Amino acid sequence: MRYDIAIIGTGPAGLEAALTAKIRNKNILLLGSAKSSTKVEKAHAVNNYLGLPGIAGADMQKKFLEHVSSLGIEITDDTVSAVYAMGDYFVLQGVSEMYEASTVILATGVVLGKPYPGEEEYLGKGVSYCATCDGAFYKGKKTVVIGGSEKQEEEADFLTEYASEVLYFPLYQGEVHVNDKVTVVHERPLEIKGEAKVTGLVTDKGLHETDGVFILRDAVAPGQLVPGIETDGPHVKVNLDMSTSIPGMYAAGDIAGLPYQYIKSAGQGNVAALSAVSYLAGMEKK
Amino acid sequence: MRYDIAIIGTGPAGLEAALTAKIRNKNILLLGSAKSSTKVEKAHAVNNYLGLPGIAGADMQKKFLEHVSSLGIEITDDTVSAVYAMGDYFVLQGVSEMYEASTVILATGVVLGKPYPGEEEYLGKGVSYCATCDGAFYKGKKTVVIGGSEKQEEEADFLTEYASEVLYFPLYQGEVHVNDKVTVVHERPLEIKGEAKVTGLVTDKGLHETDGVFILRDAVAPGQLVPGIETDGPHVKVNLDMSTSIPGMYAAGDIAGLPYQYIKSAGQGNVAALSAVSYLAGMEKK
Repeated sequence: MRYDIAIIGTGPAGLEAALTAKIRNKNILLLGSAKSSTKVEKAHAVNNYLGLPGIAGADMQKKFLEHVSSLGIEITDDTVSAVYAMGDYFVLQGVSEMYEASTVILATGVVLGKPYPGEEEYLGKGVSYCATCDGAFYKGKKTVVIGGSEKQEEEADFLTEYASEVLYFPLYQGEVHVNDKVTVVHERPLEIKGEAKVTGLVTDKGLHETDGVFILRDAVAPGQLVPGIETDGPHVKVNLDMSTSIPGMYAAGDIAGLPYQYIKSAGQGNVAALSAVSYLAGMEKK
Repeated sequence: MRYDIAIIGTGPAGLEAALTAKIRNKNILLLGSAKSSTKVEKAHAVNNYLGLPGIAGADMQKKFLEHVSSLGIEITDDTVSAVYAMGDYFVLQGVSEMYEASTVILATGVVLGKPYPGEEEYLGKGVSYCATCDGAFYKGKKTVVIGGSEKQEEEADFLTEYASEVLYFPLYQGEVHVNDKVTVVHERPLEIKGEAKVTGLVTDKGLHETDGVFILRDAVAPGQLVPGIETDGPHVKVNLDMSTSIPGMYAAGDIAGLPYQYIKSAGQGNVAALSAVSYLAGMEKK
């Protein structure tokens, strides 16, 4: 099955894009966390989302999800690790499945902070962004997981089905809930070491020898998510109609640049969806 | 008094810009109809404004105005007929007053439809966009008023204080409420005739001799509102940060281009306000 529009991300940009595309009767795939954005959820009070005065993040998240759900839109709870442009369609690599769509809207949010030294160099040579995808390659081996949020804990759990050792480095505050085969290490990852392949992770406390480093952020840097896309620092380069350097691919929200504001993200999601709808109309005429 | 940010227009773009600028502690002037946008008010049900599912236009308008009012923001009910860039500040020509501001956000909506033949040629030579501004020049003369909405009726009434004849051509449906010195004419204006100055208005029924033609639309074309600004058809040319070709001037909403969508307008209003805030910070450093 090939969708008209695949939307990656369930923050305000992705949810608004889904609403607009659905109202235009497009066959959409909305991929991301079914709980929407943890950033929205954790916001204290937002006062500049016109129409929702002084709303708490958690209430806003609830309203957004209810709105989307009221139109019969379902969220496919999956993490996309890569999107490939195939000419007149796209292939999206999810954790459990591959998806196809004629157009794609990137609404994944933004990854702040730089990659670790060695991260880009050893990507595919021991560095991975998806435990579920690559775990089977680490049967009987030593692995390290850097977890950007609680969501990543089950990925660490999953790795224990293959790896002989799973060290888990949480980057967040609060309790960690992993199975007893995972060793939680409270150290700050600094650098990935290797030769032909990864050999170790350096932290503020020393070196951990390992065969694989899984870096599980809530969002992937755009250049890693979409090979070949034009970027500007941590952002995707966009035009006013939210088009990117790849025909048929659009971006909206934090990934499309500053400012990081909910109403701006929603507005761009709307524009991206309508631009994708126009693009689809153009494809049909060919 | 010089405001930090003057916002022209009280639709979703202007209201959101006002919220965002106010939260950033800027001294703002919000100019436009105190009733917000008639376009919003008359919308049946809007289903793609994320967070406000299936809302009627009138309810949306009420929510928007309440939100703005909850932050202590007041609307100055005035119509701006021209904005002049003076270097490091702007002068705004209102009906009853002149205003000064360091930055301006244009959120006036868009004028659809072309100017009448002769309109641009005779602008300032018998064609005017503001009865209150120019009425006194027509003492004892014959005038014509083309009214884009009910709001313009009082401008026609006002003209009777000077002009010997006021013919009122409503462009809208419904009853017209003007004083008994105004003659309501239900004909379709087609062209403005003149020699050195305006001599008449041609309609679908014939020619009306006149000395002045007041064309009172709810929004003025951007090139008329802001002399020298770069435009693209009926829109102002904008960059992603909503800046225009004039430093310190921003645009948001329908005036900034397609699509005409409430959530897109609000999102752009937010971006425009934050860009103006950055610009002001840059001015202070000089």
